[in-house]
Parts: sequence; C-alpha cells; structure tokens
Amino acid sequence: MAFERTLKMGMVGGGPDAFIGDVHRKAARLDGKIEIAAGAFDVDPAKSRQMGEQLCLDPGRAYDTYQDMIKGEMARPEGERIDFVSICVPNNLHFPIAKDFIEAGFNVMCEKPMTITLDEAKELEKLVEKHGVVFGLMHNYTGYPMVKLARDLVAGGDFGKVRKVVVRYIQGWLATKLEDTGLQQATWRTDPKQSGAGCLGDIATHAENLAEYITGLKIENICADITSFVPGRPVDDDVNCLLRFEDGVKGILHATQIATGQENGLSIWVHGENKTIEWHQEEPNALYLKDNEGPMQVWRRGNPYVEEVSAAAARGCRIPPGHPEAFIEAMANVYCNFADTIWAKLEGQEADALVSDFPKVGDGVRGMSFIETVMESAKSDQKWTAMKK
Amino acid sequence: MAFERTLKMGMVGGGPDAFIGDVHRKAARLDGKIEIAAGAFDVDPAKSRQMGEQLCLDPGRAYDTYQDMIKGEMARPEGERIDFVSICVPNNLHFPIAKDFIEAGFNVMCEKPMTITLDEAKELEKLVEKHGVVFGLMHNYTGYPMVKLARDLVAGGDFGKVRKVVVRYIQGWLATKLEDTGLQQATWRTDPKQSGAGCLGDIATHAENLAEYITGLKIENICADITSFVPGRPVDDDVNCLLRFEDGVKGILHATQIATGQENGLSIWVHGENKTIEWHQEEPNALYLKDNEGPMQVWRRGNPYVEEVSAAAARGCRIPPGHPEAFIEAMANVYCNFADTIWAKLEGQEADALVSDFPKVGDGVRGMSFIETVMESAKSDQKWTAMKK
Amino acid sequence: MAFERTLKMGMVGGGPDAFIGDVHRKAARLDGKIEIAAGAFDVDPAKSRQMGEQLCLDPGRAYDTYQDMIKGEMARPEGERIDFVSICVPNNLHFPIAKDFIEAGFNVMCEKPMTITLDEAKELEKLVEKHGVVFGLMHNYTGYPMVKLARDLVAGGDFGKVRKVVVRYIQGWLATKLEDTGLQQATWRTDPKQSGAGCLGDIATHAENLAEYITGLKIENICADITSFVPGRPVDDDVNCLLRFEDGVKGILHATQIATGQENGLSIWVHGENKTIEWHQEEPNALYLKDNEGPMQVWRRGNPYVEEVSAAAARGCRIPPGHPEAFIEAMANVYCNFADTIWAKLEGQEADALVSDFPKVGDGVRGMSFIETVMESAKSDQKWTAMKK
Amino acid sequence: MAFERTLKMGMVGGGPDAFIGDVHRKAARLDGKIEIAAGAFDVDPAKSRQMGEQLCLDPGRAYDTYQDMIKGEMARPEGERIDFVSICVPNNLHFPIAKDFIEAGFNVMCEKPMTITLDEAKELEKLVEKHGVVFGLMHNYTGYPMVKLARDLVAGGDFGKVRKVVVRYIQGWLATKLEDTGLQQATWRTDPKQSGAGCLGDIATHAENLAEYITGLKIENICADITSFVPGRPVDDDVNCLLRFEDGVKGILHATQIATGQENGLSIWVHGENKTIEWHQEEPNALYLKDNEGPMQVWRRGNPYVEEVSAAAARGCRIPPGHPEAFIEAMANVYCNFADTIWAKLEGQEADALVSDFPKVGDGVRGMSFIETVMESAKSDQKWTAMKK
Repeated sequence: MAFERTLKMGMVGGGPDAFIGDVHRKAARLDGKIEIAAGAFDVDPAKSRQMGEQLCLDPGRAYDTYQDMIKGEMARPEGERIDFVSICVPNNLHFPIAKDFIEAGFNVMCEKPMTITLDEAKELEKLVEKHGVVFGLMHNYTGYPMVKLARDLVAGGDFGKVRKVVVRYIQGWLATKLEDTGLQQATWRTDPKQSGAGCLGDIATHAENLAEYITGLKIENICADITSFVPGRPVDDDVNCLLRFEDGVKGILHATQIATGQENGLSIWVHGENKTIEWHQEEPNALYLKDNEGPMQVWRRGNPYVEEVSAAAARGCRIPPGHPEAFIEAMANVYCNFADTIWAKLEGQEADALVSDFPKVGDGVRGMSFIETVMESAKSDQKWTAMKK
Repeated sequence: MAFERTLKMGMVGGGPDAFIGDVHRKAARLDGKIEIAAGAFDVDPAKSRQMGEQLCLDPGRAYDTYQDMIKGEMARPEGERIDFVSICVPNNLHFPIAKDFIEAGFNVMCEKPMTITLDEAKELEKLVEKHGVVFGLMHNYTGYPMVKLARDLVAGGDFGKVRKVVVRYIQGWLATKLEDTGLQQATWRTDPKQSGAGCLGDIATHAENLAEYITGLKIENICADITSFVPGRPVDDDVNCLLRFEDGVKGILHATQIATGQENGLSIWVHGENKTIEWHQEEPNALYLKDNEGPMQVWRRGNPYVEEVSAAAARGCRIPPGHPEAFIEAMANVYCNFADTIWAKLEGQEADALVSDFPKVGDGVRGMSFIETVMESAKSDQKWTAMKK
Repeated sequence: MAFERTLKMGMVGGGPDAFIGDVHRKAARLDGKIEIAAGAFDVDPAKSRQMGEQLCLDPGRAYDTYQDMIKGEMARPEGERIDFVSICVPNNLHFPIAKDFIEAGFNVMCEKPMTITLDEAKELEKLVEKHGVVFGLMHNYTGYPMVKLARDLVAGGDFGKVRKVVVRYIQGWLATKLEDTGLQQATWRTDPKQSGAGCLGDIATHAENLAEYITGLKIENICADITSFVPGRPVDDDVNCLLRFEDGVKGILHATQIATGQENGLSIWVHGENKTIEWHQEEPNALYLKDNEGPMQVWRRGNPYVEEVSAAAARGCRIPPGHPEAFIEAMANVYCNFADTIWAKLEGQEADALVSDFPKVGDGVRGMSFIETVMESAKSDQKWTAMKK
Repeated sequence: MAFERTLKMGMVGGGPDAFIGDVHRKAARLDGKIEIAAGAFDVDPAKSRQMGEQLCLDPGRAYDTYQDMIKGEMARPEGERIDFVSICVPNNLHFPIAKDFIEAGFNVMCEKPMTITLDEAKELEKLVEKHGVVFGLMHNYTGYPMVKLARDLVAGGDFGKVRKVVVRYIQGWLATKLEDTGLQQATWRTDPKQSGAGCLGDIATHAENLAEYITGLKIENICADITSFVPGRPVDDDVNCLLRFEDGVKGILHATQIATGQENGLSIWVHGENKTIEWHQEEPNALYLKDNEGPMQVWRRGNPYVEEVSAAAARGCRIPPGHPEAFIEAMANVYCNFADTIWAKLEGQEADALVSDFPKVGDGVRGMSFIETVMESAKSDQKWTAMKK
C-alpha cells in the first residue's frame, strides 16, 4: 500500500531508561511508513524532553504528560496531528491512557496485557467500538511470517482436525530476585500494583494468544497451578495449565521466568489428525511440518513454496530466504498492518483480511479473561474453570 | 567386572513376530557377558521352536511354555541352568510369569509396566524380597550415559534446589487406528485386557521414571487429563498431568501417541535455582546445561569432563566422543549392571552403587502407583490426587 | 552517540524493481539516525520519480541521474545537502559513481564488490585518502554482533595461535539458468559486463572478507578451481580454494551458487591451538566455542557474558537475548558505525576503534585482489598464486 | 538370512590395551550371527591369554602369535575352525597378516587403511582373487543406513547429475602432542612406521571412501595441501584437497585432527542438478534432502518412506524410528553383510547385491591410491595429480 505521506506516531512511555519503547520506535520506523512525531516519554518531564531531543523531535511535541500530548495534538490542524499513539508503559497505566486517547478520537497501539482487569478490557472494547478508532495490541509474536504460515497450514485441508496444542514460554532471567537490584525491567514487572500479575501477564498471555491465533480455536476451560518460586516475590513467576479448547481439543500451556539459562523460549506444537506443526521463536525463520507418511519438512521464511500457501507470510517478508528476519521485523509487521489499516480508514476504505491481520482489542479481552481464569482456577486448588466472560 | 563364564539368559516372549524381544537379545549380547540359552518364545510352540532354531539354541531348550522352561531348567544341574529370565510379553502376563520364576528362585528381567495393578506390583515386590532374587525392570532410558550424568549434575552442589521439572514423551504412530490393520505392536497395546492402559502404561511411565530417576524426587500429587483421541480406541492415547513433587517442586508430564509425525520424543527439562538441564532421547549423546551466568554448555558422551563428574556415565560408555552410542547400548547398560549384580550375588558379594544402578522392582511399584493415580485423578475430573500407596 | 539532527542519505539505485536498495533503506532507517532525503533510484527517470513519491521525498530530490543528484545537492545550502550517498547498482557502475561522488566531496557507502578491477579499487582508495571522505563498503556480514565476538575471542589470549580457517558460502538459487527467466537479480549478476565475476564477486568475496575480519590475518597465497556448472552461463558459479594465510595458517574457502536447496549458507570455522569457533549466518545469534577440555559452549547474542568479552558485540545489540536480531540489524550496524563516523567528522573529532569498526575502502581493495588472484590461479591450472598487489 | 550355526570369528589384535578391537567384538556379536572363537590378541602372549580368559574362550584358542592361530585353526576339523579372522592391528601389520591368512584360505575382515603402500594393496587384491576368500575392509561409515539411503537417493532419477561433493572429517583430539603422554591410540597413529600416514590414512581415507560410495563416482585428480601443525609430529595432521571426479564433477575433501573441540565430524554434502543431500556422522539417524522447489526434508532412519526408496537402508535397521541406532550398529551392518556373504559361500551360493554391500579389497586399493596421490600432489607443491594406478 503506497502512502501519500508517512503516518505520525506519538508515544507514551519509552523514555531514556525504558526498554520496549525504543524497540517500538525501531519497528515503527523500519519500513518507512511511520515517523515519530510526538511523545510523553517519561513521568519525569525533563526526561521526556531529553528523549525528544535525542529523537530530533520538534521541541514543542515532547510533552510533559500524556494529557498535555492529547491537548497539544488536538490543537494542531487536522493532518498535522499524530495519526496514532503507542502506549509503552507499565500495565496498570494502559487502561487510563488508552481510554483518554480513544475518547479523544486517536488511534491506539497498546502494549500487552491490555489492562489489569477483565472489566477494564471489556470497557476498552466498547470504547473502541463507540469511537471507531483503530486499536492494535502488541502481541508481536503473531507478526512472525512463520506464525502466519502455521495458522494457514493448520487451517488448510491437509492438516486434519486439531487434536492437541502444547505451548510454552520459558525464560530464566527472573530466577533470582533481580527486582532487588533496581533493574527497572524487573522492578515494575514484579510489583503487582503496576503489573497486575507476574509471569502470567508478562509472558503466559503471549502463549495463550499464539495458541488461539494459530489454531483459530478458543480456550474454554483451564485447570491451573501457579507459583512464586523466588522467595519474597509478590507475584507469580511460574504458570502451568491444562487446557480444554472448543471442539474437544486438549492442550498444555506452561510459562515460567525461573527456567535458569533460558532466554525467550516461546514454542508451540499443534497436533492435527494428519499433521503436526512446531515453531520456536528463538529460531523464527523455520517451521517444522510433520506427518506419519513422509520425511519431516522444514519450511523456511521467504521461499516461494511458503508464499503459495500463505499470502500473510509472504506479506510479512522483506528479504530472501537465508537472510534471516527476526524480532524487530515481526513487530514491524504488526505496525505495518496497523498503519495500513489506519491509512485505509483515512481513505475511507475497509482494510481487507490480510491488512487487518494484527492483534486487536478483542485479543486483549481474551488475554484478560485468560489471566483471571487462571488465577481463579489456581486459587480454587486447580479446579477446571470456564473462561470468564 | 570379569566373569568366569557368560551368564545364561532365558527368555519368555520374543518370538518371530515380536519386536522388543529381539532388541533385548541384541542388548544382552552386546558386551559378551550374556548368552541366550533357552526360551519359551511364543504362545505357539511351533513358533517357539522356530525361534530356537533361528538362534542356534540347543533344541531341548526351546520350550513350549514358560512353565516347561521353569521345569526344564530346574532339572538341569546347577551352573547349567539359565542365570535369569527376560520377560518380553504383553503387560498382563508380566505378573504371573514373573511370580512363577521368582518363586522358583530365578533372577528376572521384566519389561515395563511391571504389572496391570498396583496390588500386583506390591506383591511382586514382596516376592523379590522374600526369595532374594535379582529383579530388573526395563526402564531402558535410564541406561543412557547422559541421563546418568543429568542425575549426577542435578545432585551436584552447583545445581541448586530443583524447582520445576517438565518431561514429555511424544509419539505419533498411533494417530490413526493402526490396531485395525493387524499390526501386532498396535493390537496388544490398545487392548485394555493385555495392556491395562494405553499411552499411560506404554510411555507415560517411562517419563515418570525418568523424572524421578534424574531428580531423585518423588511425585506426591497429580492432576491429570487423559483422552482417547482415535475414535473407537478403548484405551487412552493422550496424557496431560500437572505434578507436585516432594519439597515444593512443581512439574508437568505429558505423553501422547497421536502427535503425528513424532517418532519417540522423550525429553526432559529440570530447572534448579542455578542451572537447567535439558535432554532429548532422540539425540541421546548430548546434554544441555544452562545458567544465567555464562554460555549454554553442550556436554557430550564419552568426554573426560563428563567422566570427572559422573562415574556412572563413564561406566555406561563404550566408545570415544563423536562415535555415537544409542538405544541398544542404553538397554545394554541396564543388562550390564543387572548381570554384574547377578555375578556379584553368585560370588557372594554385594553389588556397589554403580553396579546396582538399574531399575528394580521398586520402580515398578512407583510406575503402577503413577498409572492408578493418573486414572483416578482423570476420572474425578482432574482433582489433585495423592500418589496411591 | 547523540546526533543533533538525523543524517541525510542519498541513494543511487534502489528503484522499484531492485532488491538490495530497499534493504539498505530499512537498515539505514532502523535506528533513527538516518533519513532518506534524495535519490537517483533508477536509470529510468520515471521510475526514479516513482520511487521518490513512494518514499514521500521532496519531489525535487528524486533525480533523473546520479550526475543531477551531485549537482542538485551541491546547489543546496550546506547542512541541507545529503550527508552521504549509498550506491546500490550493478558492480560495473560502482567505480564511476563512487569516483564522482568522492570527487565532489560526498561521503560514500558502496555495495560490494567495490569495483570490477583491482586497479579501479586502488584508484578509489587513493581518492578517498585525497578527499578525506568517509567511505563504507557493505560487507554486511561483519556487522553481526556474533562475528564481532568471534573476532574478539580469536584475538583473546585463550584462543591460541590460529592454525586453520574453513569458510564457505553456499547458495542454490542459481542452480538453473534463472537469468533466462528475466529475473533481474539473476540477470545482471550473471552478465560479466555488469558483474565482472559471478559467484566469486557476489559471495566468495564476503567469505574472504569474513575470514580476514575474524582472524585479523591476511591471505597470502591461493590455489583455486572455478567452474561454470550451468550450461551457457558466461560467469563462474562455483569457487573452490586452498588458502595460505600469513604466519603459516592454512585454509579452505568454497563458495557456490549451485548448491540446490541451500539458501544463504555463509559459515566459518576457525581452529586455534586451544579453541575452535564456529558461526553460521543463517542462525546468527549463536556462536559455538569449543576446546578439548570441556563442553562446547553456545554463546548467544545479548548476554552479559558476551558483552564482557566484546564491547563491539555489545554495541551491535538492540534487544535482550532470545529476542533474535538478524540480517537487517547487522546491516544497520554497519550504517550506525558509518553514520557515527560521519558525525564525528562533522564535529571535528576522530572516531574511536569501536565506532570505526565497519568495512572500508581497504576491504574493497583486498576483495578485488582476491578476485583477480583466484582468477589467475584458476586460469593457470591451479598453481599457487600470491595475492596480487 | 538364517544361519544353521553362528560363524566363528578369530581376531588378531584387540588386546587389553586396544580400543577398536573391542568395538569389533561388540559389533560382531550384536546380531547373534557371529561368536568370538579364537584370537592372537596381543604381541605379548600373556596379554593374549588374558584377553582369551576375559572373553571366556577355550584356552587353547588364545594364541601367542597370529602364525600359531593359522596353524592351530588349520589343525582343527573343518567346520570347527574359525570362519574368518578380523585384523585390528596398526596399519603396517595389515598387509603381512592379511596375506598369510588369505594364503591359508581364511576369509578376512581388515581394518583400514588396508596397507602401507599401493603396491601392497594391489597384491592383496590379487591374492583375494586367487584364493577366492571373502575380504571385508572396515570402512564402517558406509554401514550407516542413512549413508545407504544417500547413495540410493543420489542414484535415483530425481537427483539429477551430481555436480559437486564436499566431504570433511574433522577431529580435535590430536591438537596437542598427545603421543608424548603415552596414550596408545595416539602413539602408533603418529608413528610413520606403524601408520604410514597420519590424518591422511586415519580419517581422510574414510572421507574419500564415503564420497565415492555415495556418489558412485571415482576421483580422478587431486590438488592437495597437507600439514603437520603440532611441532615435532612426524606425520601429517591436516589434509586439504581440491578434487576432480570423473564426469566433470568437482569437490573438496578436508580432514584434520587439530580442530580443537571437534569430536568425530565426518560430514558430506552432495549437490546434484536438482537436489542436495547432507549427512553428519555425529547425528547419523538423519539425512537432509533439499531442493529449490520445496521445504527441506529430514529423512529419518527406520521409517517406511526410507525403506520404500532404499532396501539397503531398510536392511541396515533394527529398531523403529526415534529409537536411535549409531556407530556400533553401523559397524555391525558391515559384519552382517560380510557374514551373510561368507554363509552364502559356504552354501555354494552367490551373495546378491544387497548382501554383498560392504567395503572390499577394491576399496582398499582406492584408499591407498588416494593416500599416495595426495602425498605426491602435496610434495610437488599442489600440482593437480592424477589418481595413481
């Protein structure tokens, strides 16, 4: 899709000490569709201005607060305002900030988990509907081309009915009480006031989203066991779930932050009547397809045989096979589809299914439902618990 | 350990149409400590004799029935009898056959699962104790050197307290109703009268045994979900469990026979406070050791640095690193320790811990307890269920 | 390094049908230091203008010819001109275009191989020296953090003297006469007038550059065998070389475009007296370090233990371990160091060794020497041939 | 093939301090076709007798010398003699011992390299022909099922004409002067009187044999560079070759014993017009098949789809897929075919192609030709040298 101009992005969060905000900026910039135009980058106004300088922004658009940004941008002539805002702040702030921007009519890209409660999530869903804004949720892992291929292979006729899903997300970085060292990434993630939940919100929701994205199936019931292994940690750092999806599909989801020496091990296996697919985020350019008839196949990003099966995977590729693409490119794919959808809206058009293939407010509602259901099941000593509505 | 003579092995099962019996023979033969001397190889006496000829046995020692073998061998002078019997028949026959041999004073190597019920298992345990025979249970996967290394690394001081265990055993060969094709391996395994359980007894017990062997920890509580995915199959082909071990250790065990395209995927991850170990049966010569401080290490069978840490791993190696050893060698390691223990007994000595490192009747009791506990938890709609005693 | 403004990049090549030009733009954009400001994107002026529109450029800066771009940009006030030009055109045009820009005082980023002849390369080297411009050569593979780590590990005291280097670059895409299908990427690469050489210039030079970069050793003598396997192809598609480096180091370099089914298999093994390193471009986030004493180590991008050993690897990382970075990020690392060096020059400073760590005109001279030496050795029926000077 | 009795194997070498002799015994025993019946296990008669006892042999058949074994066995009634002898001694002794056994009419299994000179090899070839004995040469790597599959895939119509072969054999264990520590394996291998050559004879010949076995193509010309990296070592420890096979096929062969940290890295890539195969000895149960049309395929030992394509691979499998087989099983496959060929001869029959698929005296002649050709090319400063006849 050719744009007449680049879209202007505002940002809440992503200040000098932050991590994910800068990754958002790189991903947004990558394909030349988006430029960073404004921001309230930090709760400390001085740091917000410092980041504005570092980004060579118009000084008037490095705001002290996100409320100022809303006012300031609204005051600009149409066409010169930001086209959307990216919200990259601790979890507990997602809801109020997103709410305010939506009510002011801005399109929103929001980090996950979307909110702290399911009720907040459902309220955002209503607001998005009411105000007609484009809302993206940064479940970036579904931006990987091989994840899109996986979805399209599972949906294809050869795969057979899905029977079982195993999804895991294992990290080791929080195996010690890193939050006590002052590391900002650890501190807010393990503070229940800011994060709502620990491992559950930070990574288990990615696993849940990935499983539902690839299979197109909804989880219906969960039997969960959650643990805080690190002494003195007030949030969970380990999540184990038995899953029951619709249509008799069974599953396992496990996530942990105490798997010493593991980096970012998000992996999924989907077993169908005829085929199995397997994918590992740490080697994202490969997808394994297996059956009982012939040799295992290793599908690799960028090849024509991938593109024949999955237009979505093709759309998410920039460079030829063997020239690996990775995490930032996957996040950029989310931004691309989000941006194209905004552009379509600006043009008064409907984005088609390929363009519209990015995580949305509904994914956020599912994620919050998952979190609350797991918590309830775990509290009730692992009774099977229906996904909350 | 030098023997003055090779040990004589008798065999029940392992006839012309069988699979695992022949593997037992190869494993038993490999190191030159054991010769096959007698057998009741098949329920069909003609087939038993045919196998005797094929093995170039003394025709008088290819018996029509296992009862005949007991009589025939007892009638031979001491020193010319079989030194032990290997039982390689469908699960439901393990108990009566093992019982009769034990009561006649023979040492026994038995396939797993040891029996059909926990009560039978406990009775065998008492009989072994009473008659003082050497009893081995063919949980062959603990014969792999790298599994022994894993155990020794986990027990070592650097590992830290174990926090979490994930073990899985995934196969795909029963994803269709193969038992209807007449394939013997599928037929008896899916007949509840012969097998007692499906996936649960056939492979999930291996996973349970491996987890307890490597960690030295006992499972205390299980919350399970079991399924028969293939229509018309009267036994389970899929097992998912949340585990609680002693000492606050959490875990996941999942096993399946419907993971299309998977061959024999037994894998384990053990996460300690400081380290993680990871092992895959399909690449058995490597063990992955990880921590949060330095690069992942790939330990490989046969190296001096392995042998410094694990005398048991060293003892289980025949050839240098890079010259891979595999499944049959692992089973041969079980036979070697079993044979050395018999030889020690013949010499009136006690086998030391290294020699005595093979699965025994107590492992069989644990296995049957696991099976019955999983079944009870699954029936009660996944309540946490204490391991049955 | 904080910039007061983004650097302005001009581009020659990278039109609507091109491949690598767009990758340059993405890599240049990624970190927010560089914006695309001008271009002569295609030999067809209409297509150049089309690309300008697509990039939302000032229409006056989408030039018809690169000569127009030089004039047009020189006419702009200082500070508003492009800060450098990226040259992404077929090989035979690198020299004249680079020459003109250098002589006009512009900094240059150039695709490899730098020229068609060694003489041209040496002339460029003199011009760069004479005009004092910053010149980068896009040997992007040395931009990978793990390649920088490899270099720093090899240089470290534990590695011991290097003894042997094996480097290979295997692709399969030209195994058939793809150039006859009209595919632009294949057409110019197999036209000796445009490419100078085939496999040798396109990929073998990357292998040569990688080997010299990681080891810090110069190739001194080559014994080569080159082949055109595909009937009717006027350039080589396969290169096999025995190498002798300075200091008694031996090596092998092989590159091919007819390795059916291989994507972009650039790999290197360096064997020292005490250690071996191994790296594969298709899994760029891992580096294998081996010795005869302990387990193999898998070093992974982004970890503190990497950063302790290699400040260059640390500088080339954007995101945490397990969040893979790949091809575009590696190219962006070349652009970052190139841009920082230009910025240092603008500030009147000297770039330090870390900043200055990107391939330069001297690498281009080595590459052309390599190409001419291989050709001469191959023509003389594989006599050992000294690297041409 | 059912035998009426097990074949009786004699052994020269394989004493208490030896390595490979015991591996031969394990491999020979595995399938129950062969029993160890006699031996001259050591140059020290006391050690030979000690090994006889350890193997529970008839004491009269643990001979003091191999000449005694010939006499002693000839003196036994036909049918009670050894059926063949296995020769597992340093290279320089292969020729005289093999010669004497052949001339006495015994079948022979011999370690590689077959002799010290090409002339000796050719003489053995004549003697084998003259005396009509069965002669096997222990190029055990061609015993792997996946190597046989590779050969059958390359020969199949889909592969297209072979263009290029890359074969390597990299070890690190001799990176230091291990022979000075008294380690027997290192001592004789680096003594030119006993070994003839170093790396060249010990491992490079395996690589040569593997390449010719899989492709069915003969090497015609070699351009070689050989080195002794470890100071004071009188034989080569590193071999690099450019190869030209018949029919315009090009290749690379490199072997080394100084690749620190490498275990036993024999690997091969064969590139055909349509397909590539890749195989690694350290993961022997997998074979990679690639093309430009579809995903890479990972063929795994034991599957029906393997057996449909390669009867030889099927014949070399004992256990199902995912139950890995490895080094000893591959060597056992050589013994099986060798034994079946002897049995066929005893029955007055001709062994068919499947049975007769084991390395023979002709492979030994090729190996010695390869060694002498490499040495000549290296001495002449890497001129292309035709394979010696």
